[in-house]
Amino acid sequence: MDIVEELLKHNKLALSKAITAVENEYDNAVDIMTKIYSHTGHAYVIGITGPPGAGKSTMTDKIAKEYSKRGFTVGIVAIDPTSPYSGGAILGDRIRMMDLTADEKIFVRSMATRGSLGGLSQKTGDAVKLMDAYGMDRIIVETVGVGQSEVDIVKTADTSMVVVIPGMGDDIQAIKAGILEIGDLFTINKADRDGTDKLNIEIEMMLELNPEHVGWRPPINRTIASKGIGIEAVVDSIEEHKKYLEENGKLAEIRKARTKSEVTAMLNDKVNRYIDSKVINTQEFDDQIMKMQNREIEPYSVVDDIVAKVLK
Amino acid sequence: MDIVEELLKHNKLALSKAITAVENEYDNAVDIMTKIYSHTGHAYVIGITGPPGAGKSTMTDKIAKEYSKRGFTVGIVAIDPTSPYSGGAILGDRIRMMDLTADEKIFVRSMATRGSLGGLSQKTGDAVKLMDAYGMDRIIVETVGVGQSEVDIVKTADTSMVVVIPGMGDDIQAIKAGILEIGDLFTINKADRDGTDKLNIEIEMMLELNPEHVGWRPPINRTIASKGIGIEAVVDSIEEHKKYLEENGKLAEIRKARTKSEVTAMLNDKVNRYIDSKVINTQEFDDQIMKMQNREIEPYSVVDDIVAKVLK
Repeated sequence: MDIVEELLKHNKLALSKAITAVENEYDNAVDIMTKIYSHTGHAYVIGITGPPGAGKSTMTDKIAKEYSKRGFTVGIVAIDPTSPYSGGAILGDRIRMMDLTADEKIFVRSMATRGSLGGLSQKTGDAVKLMDAYGMDRIIVETVGVGQSEVDIVKTADTSMVVVIPGMGDDIQAIKAGILEIGDLFTINKADRDGTDKLNIEIEMMLELNPEHVGWRPPINRTIASKGIGIEAVVDSIEEHKKYLEENGKLAEIRKARTKSEVTAMLNDKVNRYIDSKVINTQEFDDQIMKMQNREIEPYSVVDDIVAKVLK
Repeated sequence: MDIVEELLKHNKLALSKAITAVENEYDNAVDIMTKIYSHTGHAYVIGITGPPGAGKSTMTDKIAKEYSKRGFTVGIVAIDPTSPYSGGAILGDRIRMMDLTADEKIFVRSMATRGSLGGLSQKTGDAVKLMDAYGMDRIIVETVGVGQSEVDIVKTADTSMVVVIPGMGDDIQAIKAGILEIGDLFTINKADRDGTDKLNIEIEMMLELNPEHVGWRPPINRTIASKGIGIEAVVDSIEEHKKYLEENGKLAEIRKARTKSEVTAMLNDKVNRYIDSKVINTQEFDDQIMKMQNREIEPYSVVDDIVAKVLK
């Protein structure tokens, strides 16, 4: 079948095949992405992040179902931290698919975090574009953890939501500070637990100190996602943020910056691959490494020499 | 003062200044790194990682003190997830310094994770080299969280230890699988908690399934780091792993691979900076982005054109 043609006709199997092509860097991946590009830009992208155990997957699924109830189609890109050994990406995918597959307005896809980070970030962006071209109204990118990688991936999103839960330790405190800047929305999940009010106050205090949020005050919602409690309000907040960005011309701004950083990443990736094949994977380079190992030469001038040789 | 000369004479202020120069990319940073390179390669580097709340900082401090007791000098590079807004890196540094500063064989330094990931990984490597050239016998790199960034940073280490605690949720389960491959040693901290035996069995089972560890069976130690319980055994295990790597010629192998990946990263970084200045930060590129935004052109062929222009 013609994957692009079928994908544009809302064929889910074609969408699935296209994402697989991108994920595994099949020969046809660039061709697919090139052809679908002009059909993108319509979907609204929501990023969900937060520490392990915060209930992000459950939250994502409930939000997707709420959107579906409101008549929207929803794509989910779930970033899975599974190692190549456990095969969990596939398993987790299947379990969630069973639950969500009944709803034909929803499509879930996991991306494993194995391989290079930059690669993952680009592949996530490509998966989002494929779902966008397919015709999804809303796309949720759900990340695991709160490292730099997750921050990078959340940059794929128009609205970013940070999910936290009460009663976490001091490290979480530090992490909260780290992701404050990316949160357009905060959701305290498992909000029937002790410490919910305290956490709410802490987030509010941190928002006070944060100069980033001018014009938009990130709302702090409370949910018990496993029971579906509070999900409607979260979806309302996402839509309010969308409206805010659109009315202020900020959505166009964000998306321009994102296009720029995506193209930059593609460019860097391409150049680095060239250097890999022309420099890194050569006997000459290996010999130089050996000499560095023996402290006969130092790497800084070697790098300068190579740069002079490679660039115009 | 001549920073390099003083650093090589074991002047801690010079070490501190040199790390600051590297962290902030001062003009003299490359010069310092070039000059100290031939003095590196003596220190043994230990990476400590694990999920938030596992007690990595406490563990790191106790291990440092144990090494000091055994007559070794110890440098600590603590990767701090603090955002530029909270100033926590400095605060956290000071609190720990107060505790450890009494011991003049120990030197602690935090590195903030703001800025680019690749950059942090390189800066961590540079800080390790500076401590190495200074004359530290053991250097501990302590990371926060367990994302790809941490895995990259742990690659700076000769021996990597993963710290876990009993009673964490399902996400942790997935994360454990993700970091299994990088653990030469496992430590169950807070081992007086319920679930310690269960966690021990889970780790053992995962190790069974892991084909990476041929010749070295990662030991699983138990500690209550806050009370100093079990720390001696952990340090013994680290030294056993060191001995194992040395006797099998594997240490030289690991370090060669590390040098190669470090030099590759330096090279990529330098080339990417060149592209930033010659391509990304130009009006022409900005115009192209605008056209992509309007779906008049697609990025894939633009990238190809630029690559052809930039590379020899």
